[in-house]
Amino acid sequence: MTYFRKNINAMGGYTPGKQPKGGGYIKLNTNENPFPPSPKVLEAIKEAADDELRKYPDPMGTAAREKAADVFGVEPGMVLCGNGSDELLTMIVRAFAGEGDLIITPYPTYSLYETLAEIQGARFESIDFEEDYSLPADFARPDAKITFVPNPNSPSGTVVPKDVLRDLAGKLDGILVIDEAYVEFADSDCLGLVNELPNVIVLRTFSKSFSLAGMRIGFGFAQKEIIDGLIKVKDSYNVNRLFIAAAVAGLDDMEHVRGNAQKIRENRAHLTQQLRGLGAYVWPSQSNFVLARFSPPVSARRLFEELEARKILVRYFKYRRLEDCLRITVGTRQEIDALMGAMAELVESKAVVV
Amino acid sequence: MTYFRKNINAMGGYTPGKQPKGGGYIKLNTNENPFPPSPKVLEAIKEAADDELRKYPDPMGTAAREKAADVFGVEPGMVLCGNGSDELLTMIVRAFAGEGDLIITPYPTYSLYETLAEIQGARFESIDFEEDYSLPADFARPDAKITFVPNPNSPSGTVVPKDVLRDLAGKLDGILVIDEAYVEFADSDCLGLVNELPNVIVLRTFSKSFSLAGMRIGFGFAQKEIIDGLIKVKDSYNVNRLFIAAAVAGLDDMEHVRGNAQKIRENRAHLTQQLRGLGAYVWPSQSNFVLARFSPPVSARRLFEELEARKILVRYFKYRRLEDCLRITVGTRQEIDALMGAMAELVESKAVVV
Repeated sequence: MTYFRKNINAMGGYTPGKQPKGGGYIKLNTNENPFPPSPKVLEAIKEAADDELRKYPDPMGTAAREKAADVFGVEPGMVLCGNGSDELLTMIVRAFAGEGDLIITPYPTYSLYETLAEIQGARFESIDFEEDYSLPADFARPDAKITFVPNPNSPSGTVVPKDVLRDLAGKLDGILVIDEAYVEFADSDCLGLVNELPNVIVLRTFSKSFSLAGMRIGFGFAQKEIIDGLIKVKDSYNVNRLFIAAAVAGLDDMEHVRGNAQKIRENRAHLTQQLRGLGAYVWPSQSNFVLARFSPPVSARRLFEELEARKILVRYFKYRRLEDCLRITVGTRQEIDALMGAMAELVESKAVVV
Repeated sequence: MTYFRKNINAMGGYTPGKQPKGGGYIKLNTNENPFPPSPKVLEAIKEAADDELRKYPDPMGTAAREKAADVFGVEPGMVLCGNGSDELLTMIVRAFAGEGDLIITPYPTYSLYETLAEIQGARFESIDFEEDYSLPADFARPDAKITFVPNPNSPSGTVVPKDVLRDLAGKLDGILVIDEAYVEFADSDCLGLVNELPNVIVLRTFSKSFSLAGMRIGFGFAQKEIIDGLIKVKDSYNVNRLFIAAAVAGLDDMEHVRGNAQKIRENRAHLTQQLRGLGAYVWPSQSNFVLARFSPPVSARRLFEELEARKILVRYFKYRRLEDCLRITVGTRQEIDALMGAMAELVESKAVVV
C-alpha cells in the first residue's frame, strides 16, 4: 500500500480491549465503572437532544470548560475539552513532538502512548518501572519533547507520589503529561501542579469515575500558554452539544462520582483479598482495577482463556513483565464473587495449569 | 513558548465562523441547516441516553458503519466514522502526509486544509480556480501526497464534474479527497468513484443536510485498504454511543434529509434572484449557500459589518478574490426576506458605500 506514510504502513495499530457484541458477559476487561452514571447526566442529554442540534456546538465547549475550571479550582483558560483523554493525547503528540522527536514513557504502561508516537513518526523509548512500580531514579530524559506518566498507572494501579512528579517536571526541557484517568479512585492527585509548573499537563476522563465511557468526555489542564497552543491543533468543533450538556451535568453531581468511587474502593479491597487468598500477588492498587500475578503451575494466559470461555472478560497482555499477570477491573460484589468462584474452580480442577 | 513544535508556534490556527452566545441572531454564516433534524434522530438519542453509557462504544461504530454502507451502496469495510468530516480530514493528513510532504488544494476553498497541513508540518500549495471556479487544466500535481477538492466547493458553491475528478485521480500518485460536505444540495455526487479508483476518498457530513452540526457526525468512504490504514490512525473509541444512535436513525430517515434539501434548493433560487436584483454577481450554487460579489461603490466588508450590527450574520473572508464577496447560507424564506430587506435598505441609504 504505497499511499500511506512509511511509519503508518509499518505500525500495527492499537488494540482496544474486547467490546463483546452480545449480552451475558461479566465485563472486567476495560475498566468501565460497574455503576450507572448520574441520572442528572442522562436527563441533561435528553434535554439537549432538541432542534438546536442543527447548529454547531460552541467551539471551546465553554460551558463545560467553565464548570470544570470551577470544580477543579483553576482558571477557565487552563482547561481544554476532548473526546476522551485519548483525543487530548493525540493533540499533545501533534503539538509537541515532530518526526524523530523523543517521547518517553515508563514500562509497562498504557500502550496507546507508543501507538501515538508511531503515528506521528516520533522516536519512542520506554524506561522500566522498578519491580514495585516506582519510577527509577534515572527516569528523567531532559531531551524528551513529551514524557507520559499515567498516575495511577495502568495496568499496575500504582501511584507515583506528587513530589516525585514535581521533581521530574523540573528536570525536563519538554512537557510532562500526568494522565490521571483513574485518579478519583486514588488517595491523592497532581492537578495542583499545573498551577506551579509551566510544562505540566494533567488529563482527566469521565470514562471511569463518571461511568461515562460511552460519552468520550475528557479534560486537559495546563497553564494558559499550553492550552492556547493546543487549541490551534484541535478540530474546530471537536466536542458535540451533548458532550457539553453531559459534562456540565456530571460536574454538577460530584457526589454521585465520589459515592461510586467509594464503593469501588471497598470492592477493590475485597477483590484484592480474594485474589491473595488464591495465591496471587496483587500490587497495591489506587485504581478501579488490580494487577494480579499468578505463579506456576497456574498460567495467567490459560486462566484468561478459560474465564473468557465462561463469558467473564479480564485483560491479558502478551507483553514482557505481564505474561503471568491479569488486569481485572473492580466490578460489583456480585461480579467479583462470580469471577472468584470461577477462578477457584479453575485453579482447583487444574484446568489452568501450564 | 519553547515547548511547542516550530510549525505550531508559527501558525495562527483556524478561525471558525462566529457562534454567537446570545439569541436573536439570523445566522447565515456557517452553513447550518435552517430546518430541524429528523424527530427520529432526537428520539434515538434520548433512548440511547441510558445506563449503557457507562460502557465504551463500539470502536468502529459498527451499527452506523453498516447502515451507511447500506444507504450509500458500498461494503461496510469501505466506511469510516468520524466526529464530523473535520476529524476524518485530520486522520487523512496524519496518515498520508509526513513533514515536508506536499498537500494541494484549489484556491479559494475551505481554509482548514491549509491549517491541517501547517499542524502536520507538511508543505502546502494552492492552485487558483478559474474565474468560473472550474479546475485549471494543470491542476494535477502527481507528486502531492494529498489533493483536496471540496465538491461542491466552499465558498463558491460550485461543482466540478465527476469526469474531471475521475481524470484527476488517474493523474495523481497520491490520494484525492473529494469533500462532499454539501453534496445533498447538488445535482450529482462522486461517491461511486470509490468503487472505481484505489486513491479516492469521499467525505460526507451530517452537519448540513441532516441538520446535525451539533452532533459532529461524518463518514469517510474509500477502498478497504485505505480505510484499514486510516483505522490505525483514528482514536480507539473516536465516536460516542450517541453518535452511533443518531447516525443510524438519521440514515433511516433519508426522506427527511431530501425533503429539507429540496426546500433549500427552492430558497436558494429565491435568494440568488433577490441578490442579483440588488446588482450582485452570484455564482451558480449547488450548495446550501451562495457566494455573492458586490461591485463598487458597495463594499462587501461594510455590508457584512452593518448586517452584523443588525444581528444578521453572514460570512466575510479577508482573502484574495473574496474581499468583494459575501458567503450567505440559504436560510428560511423569512430569514432571506429579513436579510434582503436589511441589505436593500443599507444599499439604498448608501450606508455601505466604500
